[in-house]
Amino acid sequence: MHRFLLEQAELSTPGVIRIQGEEARHAVRVRRLREGEAVQVLNGRGTAADASVLAMDPKGRWVDIQGDQGVRIEPARPRLEVCCPPPKGDRLGQLIDTLSQVGAASWRPLRCDRGSKTPPPNKIERLARVAGEAAKQCGRAWVLRIEPETDFDAALLPEQGGRVIVGDSSGSDAGATGGAPVRLLIGPEGGWTPGELERARAAGATIARFGVHTMRIETAALGAAAILLSNATIPGDPRNTQAEAHP
Amino acid sequence: MHRFLLEQAELSTPGVIRIQGEEARHAVRVRRLREGEAVQVLNGRGTAADASVLAMDPKGRWVDIQGDQGVRIEPARPRLEVCCPPPKGDRLGQLIDTLSQVGAASWRPLRCDRGSKTPPPNKIERLARVAGEAAKQCGRAWVLRIEPETDFDAALLPEQGGRVIVGDSSGSDAGATGGAPVRLLIGPEGGWTPGELERARAAGATIARFGVHTMRIETAALGAAAILLSNATIPGDPRNTQAEAHP
Repeated sequence: MHRFLLEQAELSTPGVIRIQGEEARHAVRVRRLREGEAVQVLNGRGTAADASVLAMDPKGRWVDIQGDQGVRIEPARPRLEVCCPPPKGDRLGQLIDTLSQVGAASWRPLRCDRGSKTPPPNKIERLARVAGEAAKQCGRAWVLRIEPETDFDAALLPEQGGRVIVGDSSGSDAGATGGAPVRLLIGPEGGWTPGELERARAAGATIARFGVHTMRIETAALGAAAILLSNATIPGDPRNTQAEAHP
Repeated sequence: MHRFLLEQAELSTPGVIRIQGEEARHAVRVRRLREGEAVQVLNGRGTAADASVLAMDPKGRWVDIQGDQGVRIEPARPRLEVCCPPPKGDRLGQLIDTLSQVGAASWRPLRCDRGSKTPPPNKIERLARVAGEAAKQCGRAWVLRIEPETDFDAALLPEQGGRVIVGDSSGSDAGATGGAPVRLLIGPEGGWTPGELERARAAGATIARFGVHTMRIETAALGAAAILLSNATIPGDPRNTQAEAHP
């Protein structure tokens, strides 16, 4: 099913929506949508509407769709924020793409003792586009948010409360968490310093191990997110009902 | 720490080992090893030996290292076999690389109703190299094995016994498994057919859900492997002891 991401759309009433720009061009020229085809519209902020293609410009300058009234879908629970140093090159985009698929709520670049370079503003902008594309691909009603950089000590004290879990091989095995928000901290490839681990324990963070081998940042972050979200739910999502039918 | 992978080495006695070819060139010209530097030698079949650099050819044609007697390290438990259709292009290499880091024992291309193309022999050979490089990077004593292709019905009946887990959004939430071997089946991006799911249930397989969103093959396989291996251990690995010290 083809999905459109229209961040400005409220989708509060049914009606005709005209799609232009790159979203229209891609739908017509690459995906080759046909009239009458069922599609979906997301606003990336929790509203999704079923729709069908009414008409389109053969050159892809516009597509008109008839949209139903949007349905509100809550974000996945637990809310998982991932903080880690940005991996190099393409691996940063892969991290955002895969964290989107696995259901993380947000990502934040983390500055820590063994260093990490802040991604430049144009890279951050590109990451927001990656998150938007991933939301369309995997049908997320909420786009993964790219948050401002934080340093390790500030990351230990989330403004909105919730548990802080620090990935480290010295911790005990991690498992699924309950419904409360979780902030996950994954360290640089050189590992945390002893001082950082001490400050994490002093701040009440849980030190948890997410695998038996040394992993690269983006693999550790994805694996850890998958484990922490392994019993996540999306209130109101039909897939929950399906899952409950085969306990 | 730099690691050498020498698949022919037995490492049963201490002694001088001469490394040649690409392994030597890379160590001298790219990693710029120095005399006296501590390194490790793996044979990819469960033996690891600490070693130090004795001498090297400045052009990288050879490196001599003094190796200790090798230590036997058991494979990670549970033994996890992953079967899935090969994702396209680079994503297949990424799958093998990340499954290696997360601790899967083997990967097998899976043929299923919604199709999958068998990777050509030269690609399979390249995957074995990817698995070897990943083992060096993450310090695995056992290289992830690339197994021959299987079809869905044969995959439901593992020759060596153990549980079969089929990933599907209709299943209940998956969690860590015990120590018994597990075969994990991840479907194509179009999903399983109803017939496949029925045959899986009839064969006694567990249908399990590994995430709230639709995922690409390689993301689903990695996330599911991370969840199933989240309390894995490596008998004899010093990292287990460390983990037990902070319960």
